[in-house]
Amino acid sequence: MTHIYGRSDIIASIAPLAVIAAVEAGFLAFSRHEVISPGSGSLLFPNPPGDAHIRYGYLKGAPTFVVKVASSFYDNPKLGLPSSNGLMLVFDARTGATKAILLDEGYLTDLRTAAAGAVAARYLAPKRVSSIGIVGAGIQARMQLDLLRHVTDCRQAVVWARDPAKAREFKVEGFDVAVTDSVGDVLKRCNLVVTTTPSSQALLLAKDLRPGTHITAVGADQLGKQELDPQIFARADIRAVDSRVQCFDHGDSAFALKAGLVAEHQFIEIGEIVARPALGRKDEGQITVADLTGLAVQDIQIANAALANLEARAGGTA
Amino acid sequence: MTHIYGRSDIIASIAPLAVIAAVEAGFLAFSRHEVISPGSGSLLFPNPPGDAHIRYGYLKGAPTFVVKVASSFYDNPKLGLPSSNGLMLVFDARTGATKAILLDEGYLTDLRTAAAGAVAARYLAPKRVSSIGIVGAGIQARMQLDLLRHVTDCRQAVVWARDPAKAREFKVEGFDVAVTDSVGDVLKRCNLVVTTTPSSQALLLAKDLRPGTHITAVGADQLGKQELDPQIFARADIRAVDSRVQCFDHGDSAFALKAGLVAEHQFIEIGEIVARPALGRKDEGQITVADLTGLAVQDIQIANAALANLEARAGGTA
Repeated sequence: MTHIYGRSDIIASIAPLAVIAAVEAGFLAFSRHEVISPGSGSLLFPNPPGDAHIRYGYLKGAPTFVVKVASSFYDNPKLGLPSSNGLMLVFDARTGATKAILLDEGYLTDLRTAAAGAVAARYLAPKRVSSIGIVGAGIQARMQLDLLRHVTDCRQAVVWARDPAKAREFKVEGFDVAVTDSVGDVLKRCNLVVTTTPSSQALLLAKDLRPGTHITAVGADQLGKQELDPQIFARADIRAVDSRVQCFDHGDSAFALKAGLVAEHQFIEIGEIVARPALGRKDEGQITVADLTGLAVQDIQIANAALANLEARAGGTA
Repeated sequence: MTHIYGRSDIIASIAPLAVIAAVEAGFLAFSRHEVISPGSGSLLFPNPPGDAHIRYGYLKGAPTFVVKVASSFYDNPKLGLPSSNGLMLVFDARTGATKAILLDEGYLTDLRTAAAGAVAARYLAPKRVSSIGIVGAGIQARMQLDLLRHVTDCRQAVVWARDPAKAREFKVEGFDVAVTDSVGDVLKRCNLVVTTTPSSQALLLAKDLRPGTHITAVGADQLGKQELDPQIFARADIRAVDSRVQCFDHGDSAFALKAGLVAEHQFIEIGEIVARPALGRKDEGQITVADLTGLAVQDIQIANAALANLEARAGGTA
């Protein structure tokens, strides 16, 4: 029996702490080589321009495997549609039966990326966050700030976006949000900064970087994208990546490596920090950076967590 | 709005001639390089033993793209479940929206393989088929014979299977089926033969091969599988493959090439024959062989054909 869930049911059932815990466990499993996710697929569409990505995998010994399809069609907003879409499929890893179809329309992909940011901040952000800097003002920017409430007490934020009108509209319940028209200002005013843009050149510059800052960069998830000045990696005390293989290939880290500013052995995976938290931030003065490119294991984890939430909710109302 | 269809609705709505036509058009598009299907994915499961395959792609300019997940879990029969399972997803190639989910549980994969056999027979089988030989007695064997009714008038069949009990139970409506306990007997009595087994060694031997025979081999779809004596390729007048790349790598053709019995330029793709039927069988005396490994384009074609049938049926009953 295949259960099918729509986007609104998925959103209504989500337990953020459970999602963050699942994504944290995903980082751990990934760095322990307990994830089977042999590659991923992509389809590119020329007209209208779009792309679809297919990710799949499972945790060794787990009762399920997951296949995700996520698409971006860049002209969708002209039609009044969101550019992102997609779904996740959960299968029984003992029989192949289709257990559940999560018609999340891209929501769970956004959520797992935001949850990964929360995990990075949990281990790397300073204890006392004065203000949270948000670079970008789209869905991912909102979700990052929304989930950070679970790992910091700070409720002050400063937002910058290329489109000032979007920055002015940016709001997340429970946060006081200030708008700035200078991206450098974000680093000057905030000591926990998240970048969420599709930029193809560095937005945050090392010259604006102050001691005691943590930066999480989630925008550079494929070749050609960049958000951070490579010198930021040279200045950082801890350089974390979700996956060495991916970040060295197409994350922000790749630019710093290519420029010879840092060496591969100077990076650590988030999952290695989760396994041994002493490898995370040691004092309030350190500069730390987390380069996140997105892992199939996070799709696996969020699909299973969302399904558990949905099943618990169905059980509770039955 | 995502439409979701179950296996029984899919089976009830299938129009076999439309499916064969769609698969024939798929061969043509493939050989004309009009198919975008950049790779495929696989997941292997150690315990219980199983595998899942993810295929995806679209025809250039088509309004949809398709993602298929197909699994085989070999211990399922012990649980009273079929070993094959899976589903197909049809997406809007202009917006990424999920148009339809076909919960076919592997049926459409079986059907497109059988339809490919029918297309091969249409262009390569002799005009006068005396008896149809079926090697193997599983679902694929039954579906192959069932679809051959649309491309030949012959209603006589001879079946061989490793398990004689399964061969005795084999039947397809409208066909007189004889059982043989000698696989060599199939080539002696039949001039259109289809092999559908998971064999890892040659079952049909060149010494039993008579002039005027066509053989379609669909079992060897991955490394380690083999159904045909490589000498059959040496004896054949026409050696057809669904895909040069795939068949030269892991089809039955690979054994003949590796043994140096034939050269790559002596093969032709089915799609090239569809484009120019004069490249198919020329007279009743030729020996022809078709090596089918399965193409993503056939999944794309059958998903779209099944969806068209389902939508037509829904429209008709509305």
